[in-house]
Formats: sequence, C-alpha cells, structure tokens
Amino acid sequence: MTVISLVSSTKCFGGLQKVYSHQSKELACEMKFAIFLPPAADDRKLPVLYWLSGLTCNETNFIQKAGAQRYAAENNLIIVCPDTSPRNVEIPGQDDSWDFGSGAGFYVDATQEPWSKHYRMFSYVTQELIEVVNNNFPTVADKISISGHSMGGHGALICALKNPGLYKSVSAFAPISNPTKCPWGEKALGGYLGADNKDEWKNWDASELVASYNGPPLELYLDQGSEDGFLKDGQLLPQNLVDACRAAQVPCVLNMREGYDHSYFYVASFIGEHIAYHARHLQ
Amino acid sequence: MTVISLVSSTKCFGGLQKVYSHQSKELACEMKFAIFLPPAADDRKLPVLYWLSGLTCNETNFIQKAGAQRYAAENNLIIVCPDTSPRNVEIPGQDDSWDFGSGAGFYVDATQEPWSKHYRMFSYVTQELIEVVNNNFPTVADKISISGHSMGGHGALICALKNPGLYKSVSAFAPISNPTKCPWGEKALGGYLGADNKDEWKNWDASELVASYNGPPLELYLDQGSEDGFLKDGQLLPQNLVDACRAAQVPCVLNMREGYDHSYFYVASFIGEHIAYHARHLQ
Repeated sequence: MTVISLVSSTKCFGGLQKVYSHQSKELACEMKFAIFLPPAADDRKLPVLYWLSGLTCNETNFIQKAGAQRYAAENNLIIVCPDTSPRNVEIPGQDDSWDFGSGAGFYVDATQEPWSKHYRMFSYVTQELIEVVNNNFPTVADKISISGHSMGGHGALICALKNPGLYKSVSAFAPISNPTKCPWGEKALGGYLGADNKDEWKNWDASELVASYNGPPLELYLDQGSEDGFLKDGQLLPQNLVDACRAAQVPCVLNMREGYDHSYFYVASFIGEHIAYHARHLQ
Repeated sequence: MTVISLVSSTKCFGGLQKVYSHQSKELACEMKFAIFLPPAADDRKLPVLYWLSGLTCNETNFIQKAGAQRYAAENNLIIVCPDTSPRNVEIPGQDDSWDFGSGAGFYVDATQEPWSKHYRMFSYVTQELIEVVNNNFPTVADKISISGHSMGGHGALICALKNPGLYKSVSAFAPISNPTKCPWGEKALGGYLGADNKDEWKNWDASELVASYNGPPLELYLDQGSEDGFLKDGQLLPQNLVDACRAAQVPCVLNMREGYDHSYFYVASFIGEHIAYHARHLQ
C-alpha cells in the first residue's frame, strides 16, 4: 500500500485542509495532493469530489483561492486536489514554457520521449490517486465526481468521458473544450503525443470523445465567464463542445456568466453551485 | 483631489474586485489598495469596512484568500484593503527583515530616521485613505468600520482606540495585542519610534490605550485560534488585552476558536461572522 506523508494540516470551516506527499508509481516521482476532510468525515464515510487545476497551478491554488471548503463542509463532501504535472523529475525543457511541461500535464498519458516516462497524469488521476485516497481516508469508494478549471476543466471532462460510470457527475469551469483546435492544445498534444499523430490527439479531446461516449447517462455541466480573455483568444471554444454534445445527444448545460473572467475570483463566485450540483449526484 | 489609477477590475460574487494605485501624500510614495464594490454599490451609497493585513502581506492577500466578497455582497458592504507598508521607496535596510520595514509598517507613524518620512501608515489609513475612498466611490462617509489580521488586527484596534467615534465597530483576528511586550512589537516600535522611547511606545499599544479610551461606547471584538503557533510563542498575548479591557471597563469579546491556527484558512472560516458583526453596526 502506498505510504503517504503529511505535509500540512490546517483547520478550516470545522474540517481539516491537509496536504500529503507520496511516491507515485504511475508518474515515477514524488507528488503532492491536497485533501479537505469536512467535519462529517470524523463520523462516517463520505463521497469525494476530485478537482483538477489549470495551467501553472499546483495542489495549493484551489484550496487557497476558491473558498470551496465552506461548501464542502455544508455538503459533506471530501475534496481532493492533485498537482497538475509530475514534479522533481529531470526532463530537458520541462521548465521552458508556462503552458507545457511543469505545471501543464494536460491530464493525458504521454507517448513521446522524453515525456512518456513521467507524464501520465490521466492514469494517475483516474486510477492511482483514487486508490491512494480510498486506502487512506474515510471515503465511499464508488461515489466520486470530478471538476476542474481551464486545462483542469478539460481534464475533468476527458476523465469522465473515457471512464464511463466511474464518476457520478462532471463539471468544468472555463474548460479548454476542444484542444485539438486551439494553440494551447496543439502545443500540449503535439508535445506529449507527437506532432504527426493527430488521430491520437482525438482520443484526448472532449469535443471528439463525446461522439463515441457509450456509458451510463452523463451530463456535461459547463461554466464559462463571458469576459474571459482566453475565450476571446480562441483557446476555450466551449461552443464546439456544446455542438458536439448536441450532435451526439449527450446532455450538456453551459452556464454563461456575464462579465466574469478566467480568474479564481470567477471560480470562487460559482464553486458553491458546482459543489451543490455534485452533492446531488453523490447522494 | 487625489488621482487614482485602475490596476485591475474583476467581477466577483456579482460585484467588482478592483485594485487601484495612487500617489500618497502621507507616505510620499505610490501605493496600491484593493476595493470590493458589491452589486448594491451600483444603486446607492454603502458603508465601508477597512481591512488591515498582517506581516509580509500586501493589498492582494486578503482579497484572494479570505473569501470575503461573498459576505460583503450579502451584507451590502464595501471592503477596502490597503497595502501594509510604504512601497517603492529607497530606505537602507527596508528589505532586510520579514517582520520590519517593507510589508511590516505596523500601522504607526514613525518618528525615527530613516523611517519617519515614509512610514506613516497610521495617518495614511485613518485619514488620507478614507478621503481617497470617499472622494472616488459611492460610500456613506460616516459609516465605516475596521478589522484586520495579526499585525493588521492590532492596527485596526489602535486606529479605533486613537480615533474615538471614527469607526462604528472594530474587530481583530489574532491581533498582536500587546506589542510593547512581545518580540515583534519591540522590534517594530523600537525601530520606528526609537529604542529608548518606551513611553511613546505605549501610545501605539492597544493594551495600553484602552486605559485612556474616552469616546463613544466601543466594543473590542477579538478572534483567536487556539492552535496558533504565534499565540504559543508569546507574540499575540490576547489575554493581556482582555485583562486591560476589564480593568478599563471597555467591553471586549474574545472568540476562542478551538483547533485553528494563524493562517488565512482560519480567517476564511470566520470572516463571515465578522462581516455580519460589522454590518449590524453599520446599519
């Protein structure tokens, strides 16, 4: 069983906001994750909401800036936040860009050297991390949901679409909805999967994956600020995902938030609604 | 009239979280402050809660980590957060310590060279900043309250005690309650006011000032985590302030929070109660 080491434990809204480190087999490096245990976790097993953060983030951004602990305490949910890429590995060029390599794992399993040994965030998030959490904390093992922001919003969508039935619900804040068709996605998928393997890219793009989704009913619950600069720059393309869902007859809700941008001020404003949404599916 | 320049404006909980810069006459430098305008500020003038941050902070820590905007929106309060010291000045040694100089103005008016020209945070916060805010935003000019954390918690207390009637209410999270008797306070007061001027130090220590308070009824509303490492290290000394209030017959409430530490996870957990407290006094 994986040994986890406590990095910090801080009381928050009656529960405990903790950070742990552990040696990841999937990523072949030491990783950290944050976990919020609401007060009810003292008495019984609880469902878990996984949160995937965006470009440049690590396991701390969400727990410091989103204000989610209040809602997790009210709704009796555990929240787990992994880091966004392998850390403490030695790969040439990993720190050269803010949107590729460190802090930008894109939640895919890389196939290309030198990334393929460590950059396996999809398998880490959907398998190893869930096992680690279920083995060490008072969870209801089959009641999990997933959400995230930007790169992590898309990560949440592909985790759910590629693992039918694993998650009871999925939501995404300002996801990079169609990465095969935007600069961030082309850079990441080209780097991790190979610039010439564009057919393989489609296996990691939510707007492509919805067409072949064949599992239990799953609604995509999307959230987007209208004044998001990255929306205007064509990095997010939520309408492509909405259109793909309509074509595939996959239920999809897009909450457009008038005047909001891409920041955690936006996430904080609506995380309460998302946590309530997931809590309803995890009852 | 002071010209203010917009640094950023971000929608948050239906309102706007803004940051401005301006040339401060009192501090003789350019300063920044954050201001949250709740949705109701579109329609009418509102009361203002001033928030003073702690050691090492600037105008952004509170607005990113406390989650106060939700409560300010619910209670129709404007919140203003100044920086914690003069910035962009050239004073030898200002950046040598994390607990003195830059980020550690202690909300006093310095009398000693080289600090006395710029380090006038008390006059800045209690006079100039209030004028700037009232001249530029939809405020009810005579309805203001003040709160803060750690160094800023004590700052809030001395601002209120030294300006009877100016603030409708005051509260403090984990304040440095008796700075003349703790290492942080001795270093700051010694540096800004002179190591030998210990009588003058008392004019900037809440636990001393309560004895001579002679103004409208004022309750000190204090908050303290029981697992705060700085409490255990003797930097905060809240009981000294409680005892001084009792002797002076100044009303004082100390909310002890079992298991909480000194972090923003703690502040976030209780800022809602404090904002509701101030809102009642500002009606």
